[in-house]
Amino acid sequence: MNLRAVLLVVDMQNGFCGLGGTFDKFGFNIAPYREIITRLRNLIDRMRQFGVPVYYSKAIREKSGLDCIDKVHRIIPESRRERIEKMPLCIRGTWDSDVIDELQPHPDDHIVEKRRDSVFQDTEFDLWLKASRADTVIFCGIDTYICVESSVRDAFNKGYDVILLEDCVASRNPRHHETTLEQVAEAFGMVVSADELMRRVERKELIFLGE
Amino acid sequence: MNLRAVLLVVDMQNGFCGLGGTFDKFGFNIAPYREIITRLRNLIDRMRQFGVPVYYSKAIREKSGLDCIDKVHRIIPESRRERIEKMPLCIRGTWDSDVIDELQPHPDDHIVEKRRDSVFQDTEFDLWLKASRADTVIFCGIDTYICVESSVRDAFNKGYDVILLEDCVASRNPRHHETTLEQVAEAFGMVVSADELMRRVERKELIFLGE
Amino acid sequence: MNLRAVLLVVDMQNGFCGLGGTFDKFGFNIAPYREIITRLRNLIDRMRQFGVPVYYSKAIREKSGLDCIDKVHRIIPESRRERIEKMPLCIRGTWDSDVIDELQPHPDDHIVEKRRDSVFQDTEFDLWLKASRADTVIFCGIDTYICVESSVRDAFNKGYDVILLEDCVASRNPRHHETTLEQVAEAFGMVVSADELMRRVERKELIFLGE
Amino acid sequence: MNLRAVLLVVDMQNGFCGLGGTFDKFGFNIAPYREIITRLRNLIDRMRQFGVPVYYSKAIREKSGLDCIDKVHRIIPESRRERIEKMPLCIRGTWDSDVIDELQPHPDDHIVEKRRDSVFQDTEFDLWLKASRADTVIFCGIDTYICVESSVRDAFNKGYDVILLEDCVASRNPRHHETTLEQVAEAFGMVVSADELMRRVERKELIFLGE
Repeated sequence: MNLRAVLLVVDMQNGFCGLGGTFDKFGFNIAPYREIITRLRNLIDRMRQFGVPVYYSKAIREKSGLDCIDKVHRIIPESRRERIEKMPLCIRGTWDSDVIDELQPHPDDHIVEKRRDSVFQDTEFDLWLKASRADTVIFCGIDTYICVESSVRDAFNKGYDVILLEDCVASRNPRHHETTLEQVAEAFGMVVSADELMRRVERKELIFLGE
Repeated sequence: MNLRAVLLVVDMQNGFCGLGGTFDKFGFNIAPYREIITRLRNLIDRMRQFGVPVYYSKAIREKSGLDCIDKVHRIIPESRRERIEKMPLCIRGTWDSDVIDELQPHPDDHIVEKRRDSVFQDTEFDLWLKASRADTVIFCGIDTYICVESSVRDAFNKGYDVILLEDCVASRNPRHHETTLEQVAEAFGMVVSADELMRRVERKELIFLGE
Repeated sequence: MNLRAVLLVVDMQNGFCGLGGTFDKFGFNIAPYREIITRLRNLIDRMRQFGVPVYYSKAIREKSGLDCIDKVHRIIPESRRERIEKMPLCIRGTWDSDVIDELQPHPDDHIVEKRRDSVFQDTEFDLWLKASRADTVIFCGIDTYICVESSVRDAFNKGYDVILLEDCVASRNPRHHETTLEQVAEAFGMVVSADELMRRVERKELIFLGE
Repeated sequence: MNLRAVLLVVDMQNGFCGLGGTFDKFGFNIAPYREIITRLRNLIDRMRQFGVPVYYSKAIREKSGLDCIDKVHRIIPESRRERIEKMPLCIRGTWDSDVIDELQPHPDDHIVEKRRDSVFQDTEFDLWLKASRADTVIFCGIDTYICVESSVRDAFNKGYDVILLEDCVASRNPRHHETTLEQVAEAFGMVVSADELMRRVERKELIFLGE
């Protein structure tokens, strides 16, 4: 199967998974996020060797609070309320919003700034994929059941084939992490490990066409 | 809390949950879907008494196959492949695509025909909600973890408050059903039973403003 | 140049250009609209012979007034105010909203119901084009400077190549009609007559690939 | 009439209207663009005094050419072809892409980076307007018949009231400029001079509500 694939690295920002970032300072358990960093570093390098374009999504908030969800929502779920009240998270232009040092984008990589969960919502991501004739998005990053899953659902429903790398996504909620893997396999795409993806590429079951 | 709410009844069509509909004929276990019908009937009536507008979403496919997912996807997850191969499901203009008799829309209700999982994708739903100044969507219907959950994620991220009625949604996968309820409560909205919703309305904790 | 083209016939409905339709009854000059009907009839037949899929857009309003622009706008331009006040125009399910008899769609044609000016806004048109791998939209119909032009602008900006048939579009405002032709040629696409399009196809300068 | 308005300054970037910018270096007549600068400076200051939030749109291209229209279009209208061939215009991160010095945004203003003509396409503009409960967009900037008009059409059709300031928009094509003013007045919104807007505000015919 010939694929015009891109790799999407979701939200690996200091605020969420950097040592000294907002989540870390606030005492959240970021260990599950940090556990995949080395694997992601390795994955990104291999993808570049295959000529697969690398995209990074970044969740960005305005310092003014303009796009904070409490501007439009009154029913705010617990996990989000906590963040709003206590943390100025991933504010545009700050270190907190940068991709972590270990995964620093190359000059040729693409950055997509997003305001909500899905990388497709109110961003140029779809336009860029169409411009490069991409038909497949390979997903890795965090958090499995929020931003990764919402982006996966959108990718599939917009007509892109989905490959989710099960050992390159992470969640602070291990049970939801597992459910997302199951649901994606059942209803939205292919779920494999990074090594299994590479094996299929080596066996030429999957062939990455150049950009 | 004052709410300009609408009720959305997701995909309660003959093809999915009608006796003699496509899923039923194909031997799928539609019992979980049928179990909520009476509760939905009751819910819809009560919502109408409160002056809450009632919307129905209908998943529609073209007879020509134009919008079948195999036109754009090569990586097709198992649960969808099976349907494509064996079933002409909810074809536009057929009985199979109609809302089940038990929940027949009134002339004043609104029908939203959708092509993909989310009721917000490529439909006029958002436009209609804005026209009626709605700020809250109350969700019921099927299937909890596919079309309901994708619609809930979109509703929240587009700025609508979400109320998911835990005993008025159903899935053929009980475990995924439970996970969706948990995830929505944590990250996307309020999860209550229909009776609990009514109690909060009676206690005036929630007040439905007219259309 | 190989084109995967579709023909889009914009808003040729009884309400706008039918004898006895709303505009006609209201005393609007629908002569410019009716003048292109024979040419459109001819065009559609020839396109079908080339295997070019034929799409019709229909402007639809709800009887309830739910999607009337006065629900959301306070600054309503004159040409629209007049319609709102005096005419229940192209209400869903009525003869007024049907495509005129002379151009009746075939069973294999596709109908796109739209609520606003552009055929791309809140409709499945883009999804259908992607499913059929279309890359070019050939525009004809009415009104040149409103719904046709807004659809052309969206088509171009979404990445579709645009062909506007200058003698198969019409406006009640002849000057705006001319300006649209000029602007599209300068900034959005190719502007040719139907005959010129056919000549280019015969000379194989343009080649229509099958659906 | 109470308005929750924002001011949108369209594409007043060095590349289009700066001395020494790409258009200027290429020999385009940018005089019509520069003629409105003083008026815009004045307008922006007065709007800030009224508490009206100020947004700037910036047309941005990637250095890689990823989002260049020749990646997706084969039918490229003349006015755009010329630019593609000869000019690396408004590349992200360059001086060319910055708003001109005379109109430098304040720290509290909002910048919307766009890839195509309309400020609403694939951007967070709509999300920000909703977050601030805005219902009206006041338009100024360039070019009247391309980016301003496409943004106006989208604003109106998405449900925002439109005010176009006739002496604060400019085009390199004076005839198209005039037609846009006429078309907007007829079909999309209110067209007034900046002074007339101010008079209506002073007479309290229009009242700007705070952010």
